[in-house]
Amino acid sequence: MTRFACAAAAALMVFLCSAAQADEGMWTFHGFPFAKANAALKTNLDQAWLDRVRSATVRLANCTASFVSDEGLILTNHHCVEACLAEQSSKEKSFVEDGFLAKSRDEEKRCQTQVADVLIGMEEITAKVSAATAGKDETTANDVRKSTLTQLEGECEKAATQKCQTVTLYEGGQYWLYKYKRYTDVRLVFAPEASIAAFGGDPDNFQFPRWCLDMGILRAYEDGKPAKPANHLKFNFAGPSVGEAVFVSGHPGATDRLLTLAQLKQQRNQDLPQWLLRYSEIRGRLIQFSQESPQNERITADLLNSIENAIKVRRKMLDALHEDSLLERKAAEQAALQKSVAKDAKLKKSTGDPWHDIDVVLATERGLFVPYNYIEAGAGLQGRLVNFARTLVRGAAERDKPNGQRYREYTDPALPRVEQQLGAKVPVYNELEELRLGNSLERMREWLGPDHPVVRKLMSKESPAQLAKRLISGTKLNDPAVRLELWKGGSAAIAASTDPMIELARMIDPDARALRKAYEDGVEAPLRSATERIARARFASLGTSVYPDATFTLRLNYGTVQGWKENGTPVEPFTHLSRAFERATGADPFRIPDSWLRVKDKLDMNTPFNLSTNNDIVGGNSGSALINAKAEIVGLLFDGNIHSVSGAYWFDTEKNRAVAVHPAIIREALSKVYAADALLGELTR
Amino acid sequence: MTRFACAAAAALMVFLCSAAQADEGMWTFHGFPFAKANAALKTNLDQAWLDRVRSATVRLANCTASFVSDEGLILTNHHCVEACLAEQSSKEKSFVEDGFLAKSRDEEKRCQTQVADVLIGMEEITAKVSAATAGKDETTANDVRKSTLTQLEGECEKAATQKCQTVTLYEGGQYWLYKYKRYTDVRLVFAPEASIAAFGGDPDNFQFPRWCLDMGILRAYEDGKPAKPANHLKFNFAGPSVGEAVFVSGHPGATDRLLTLAQLKQQRNQDLPQWLLRYSEIRGRLIQFSQESPQNERITADLLNSIENAIKVRRKMLDALHEDSLLERKAAEQAALQKSVAKDAKLKKSTGDPWHDIDVVLATERGLFVPYNYIEAGAGLQGRLVNFARTLVRGAAERDKPNGQRYREYTDPALPRVEQQLGAKVPVYNELEELRLGNSLERMREWLGPDHPVVRKLMSKESPAQLAKRLISGTKLNDPAVRLELWKGGSAAIAASTDPMIELARMIDPDARALRKAYEDGVEAPLRSATERIARARFASLGTSVYPDATFTLRLNYGTVQGWKENGTPVEPFTHLSRAFERATGADPFRIPDSWLRVKDKLDMNTPFNLSTNNDIVGGNSGSALINAKAEIVGLLFDGNIHSVSGAYWFDTEKNRAVAVHPAIIREALSKVYAADALLGELTR
Repeated sequence: MTRFACAAAAALMVFLCSAAQADEGMWTFHGFPFAKANAALKTNLDQAWLDRVRSATVRLANCTASFVSDEGLILTNHHCVEACLAEQSSKEKSFVEDGFLAKSRDEEKRCQTQVADVLIGMEEITAKVSAATAGKDETTANDVRKSTLTQLEGECEKAATQKCQTVTLYEGGQYWLYKYKRYTDVRLVFAPEASIAAFGGDPDNFQFPRWCLDMGILRAYEDGKPAKPANHLKFNFAGPSVGEAVFVSGHPGATDRLLTLAQLKQQRNQDLPQWLLRYSEIRGRLIQFSQESPQNERITADLLNSIENAIKVRRKMLDALHEDSLLERKAAEQAALQKSVAKDAKLKKSTGDPWHDIDVVLATERGLFVPYNYIEAGAGLQGRLVNFARTLVRGAAERDKPNGQRYREYTDPALPRVEQQLGAKVPVYNELEELRLGNSLERMREWLGPDHPVVRKLMSKESPAQLAKRLISGTKLNDPAVRLELWKGGSAAIAASTDPMIELARMIDPDARALRKAYEDGVEAPLRSATERIARARFASLGTSVYPDATFTLRLNYGTVQGWKENGTPVEPFTHLSRAFERATGADPFRIPDSWLRVKDKLDMNTPFNLSTNNDIVGGNSGSALINAKAEIVGLLFDGNIHSVSGAYWFDTEKNRAVAVHPAIIREALSKVYAADALLGELTR
Repeated sequence: MTRFACAAAAALMVFLCSAAQADEGMWTFHGFPFAKANAALKTNLDQAWLDRVRSATVRLANCTASFVSDEGLILTNHHCVEACLAEQSSKEKSFVEDGFLAKSRDEEKRCQTQVADVLIGMEEITAKVSAATAGKDETTANDVRKSTLTQLEGECEKAATQKCQTVTLYEGGQYWLYKYKRYTDVRLVFAPEASIAAFGGDPDNFQFPRWCLDMGILRAYEDGKPAKPANHLKFNFAGPSVGEAVFVSGHPGATDRLLTLAQLKQQRNQDLPQWLLRYSEIRGRLIQFSQESPQNERITADLLNSIENAIKVRRKMLDALHEDSLLERKAAEQAALQKSVAKDAKLKKSTGDPWHDIDVVLATERGLFVPYNYIEAGAGLQGRLVNFARTLVRGAAERDKPNGQRYREYTDPALPRVEQQLGAKVPVYNELEELRLGNSLERMREWLGPDHPVVRKLMSKESPAQLAKRLISGTKLNDPAVRLELWKGGSAAIAASTDPMIELARMIDPDARALRKAYEDGVEAPLRSATERIARARFASLGTSVYPDATFTLRLNYGTVQGWKENGTPVEPFTHLSRAFERATGADPFRIPDSWLRVKDKLDMNTPFNLSTNNDIVGGNSGSALINAKAEIVGLLFDGNIHSVSGAYWFDTEKNRAVAVHPAIIREALSKVYAADALLGELTR
């Protein structure tokens, strides 16, 4: 198939042959290239295998996971349950730091903001969307497209007890309706201490060799009882051998492999540098704050970890965009596609010049970037409390409108999740809120300038820090009951509220909405029109032999267990327990927890710890089981090596590697360190 | 002259004509284009005028200044004396915050680390340097060049009581020996409160319109008595009119206008993003630290101000390098020069292909960047105490060598200044030191990786924070007497020391020296060879009609008082006092100090406050007097507008503006707010 595709599309050879690299590809479950995969791997995958894997794969709110017992046990990463651990914690007691093991079902702790989805159906709706938008101008088409998606989701949810979400693939080349079984009662069963789950911390993040027990176990409940999933995966504790075929079924979050050259340059010149500047400063503030006391350290850990991870990702994405070779490759791909369009009169007419149109859009976007980002997108209004307030104010106004006319995040199908988050009984720490809100207001003033009308409105008589302090000490929104009452009270309750944070959100909402309108009409609408045309031109040349960019929807990719060469030196694909002890300094993040030190003599130092494979993954795949051709768990994916970060833009066959926990260390830890016999029993029965 | 130059070098027209824009140019005092300037401005500047201005212009360690009385009064910016104010302060009393006025000569406070230099002679030494390096390979030539410069400086200082510094112009196209009269006893006479000196703080920095009394007054002493300068400038308190010819005699710090395209891309892709990431985090840590208490705020203010200023500069430099038009312009200039070389067989032979050579050098530099930066250049070892230790350790070893073989910063002419800084009785705050050293060690570990030999050597059993705390609590280097004793004790004292900070510096010095050697031989030597050849090719085409990049040596530029158009809207070139009161929020950095509020009724609200001109300035010009054609002070330069930052790479005639304090507000403040009658008397007599 590879050879055929290359021959059939000679003009696009650079593009196509790169897209058809072995082991590259985040394939949808409705477009998996069985023949190609089976030929490459000498396997016999078929639709039944795919269905079985799909029905055992779980999408969490932030990660991937898998059912691993017939009583609803869910295996994922520690960093995927870290938010749940933090929700259960306080200034005095951190489950992130100390880990957690439920000794019985009664002790399993409900994660307040988590859900678990299993994909049960997929329906293509491209034709319906196209029919609805046909003949409309870009702005109208953009509005109609959204209301159509809302309508299709609503009808789908009415038809059966299921969650329905539309999915945009190929930047608008295809639209799908994905149907999920949703579990909203998800409880925490087990997590090791952060010091072993994330041994090496930020310095080792995105590195390999590696020694992390980055695992967490949840359980889905239904009607107050452990769920009975349609399917679950079983462990093969021996793990895989070097070169063995392995698969990742999961939800890669987002890639930008199909963007135009100009869009990539906008990321390089504007989006990434500005984000990095902003978050590097926040990182500094959080580190300093966390060093003030052990309490501060506890309440900051989860947030700081996710920020440091995001910084590392974007830093390396920026590095990738600074590689001349990457941009040259993208330019060649784009030129090849443009050439194939130019040669086909009919295609040329229907396509127009979307690349030029995108240049115009991007100029508009640059003009809107700072105000849109700081005012509407929330860069200037950071923290949980201000977010609650903005959700309450906007949600009340939106719910007063007909479903089809609302912002997409407040449609009827979206509301239960909004309400779950508003009502979640999770701790809110005012010190941390002050830091975040004060910092973001300060940067809003810096970037918009002290004389900007919104800045004058908010801060003409107070400094950012003074304003943040007043709002946070005065608001009652840290009480979930207060939030739910305001939510249920709708726009009347919002209008009557004298809560200072609600007042702030009310004050800023018109400015924020105006910017959103400008952005939707000036950027989103013409951009979607242009990217749809590019996608159609690409389909005309290549069909769907090119996979769509990642969208945090279910994908399968295949690869093999292998290392790589770093500056000419081979990196072996397995690590072992002994080296973790050698690398320990005794101080975080290179500290082996006491639970391990106590039983050190009993541990088998040759136990494989982590492994690397060449599967094509990105963030969102975290928590995915690494499975073999029999669909047995032979690893728990938790990271990629440093070269995997450029996977946002392209897959580097030579160096991009996924990193997983080896099943043997999972068994060793559950058995000898945590004495989690009942849990291990359930996983192995 | 403009027309002639353009005609004579048609191949270089893009380059030359841009270089010859009216008002652009940081001209040396030995290459000032009298004819061109007089024609453009309708003035009659001559050598006598230039000599008079030169002998009244002062170079401080960090800024420019001017003699403004016959008893050694020196006018400069508040931000140029901020370090001196901070040196006099403590956790309880901040002269930065509160300002300072010496009521009598006895109260004038000596600035411990300041010097004041006046340029008294300039001698070209290009031929001597060329003769010394002729026929040598690049590495040897690099060493010999440095020892030659050291030798010439030494001979010059022996010949008369003067400080002698060699200056490299045109990236190695010319070498000069500059001779200074140096005042080492510089005392603080007056500074207003920071809240009015830097009204608007970081948000307003590099902005205009503006309302800052960014002034400070020092006095040079000689033999314990007020100095008698050869010349001084007089105020014209009426200030200049719109369109009037104005001049800035000062020391622009550094520009990169003559760099190759590849060098600019290296700044864009590597140097600037990495610096910004690093310092944005430090900014966050310092802000958080400073908010912990008023004491912390006091001890952090000076450092934080300078970091925020540097961040803003580099942010806008990065923006400039992201402008496609800038890089296209640079590419065209470069191509024009390459073409003119290619056409001349002899020139082609002597020039070679320095652009290609630079590409090779830059690849080497990228490989060295992280370790060189973190280990040798000190990104991983931040803070005063660790710097003292490194200076002591290295300085002892270097002084054991013959003068000509030492690192250039430890040659005999350089030693008095090193000793002054080591012996300065300035406060060192351990909390701040811990923050800075801990942070930098943490980043050293992050960037070099936890398994790098230097990281293992320093931090195999301690975290970065633990190491920083142990070193800082154990060292005695916060005592200037201890530092001076170690300095005077030389290498024997260093070898015998058990001070933990000295131990650290000893431990790291071999690694740091190895990196420096690799950098000097692999980057500096071939780069200098290539840039010298480019400079010679440029002289061959253009003579010295192109001014050299800024090097913190004396330059004169000319321009006129004028505003500009911002997005089509005119920005007027003068601001007035009334608007400062309207913009005040009552909270820093928009707080008018009590001293002003108390006398508000007596102040003339129409007093001009700040003004803008189109002089071509960059950092280092801060504190320069803005003078008219009679060499009267009609302003005190303290900043540029936001478009001035791209002046690092090119001068934007349309938008690049310098920003100065109007002399009228200086008189208004000294007279009515500060009741500094004696001072004002001395300035006006």
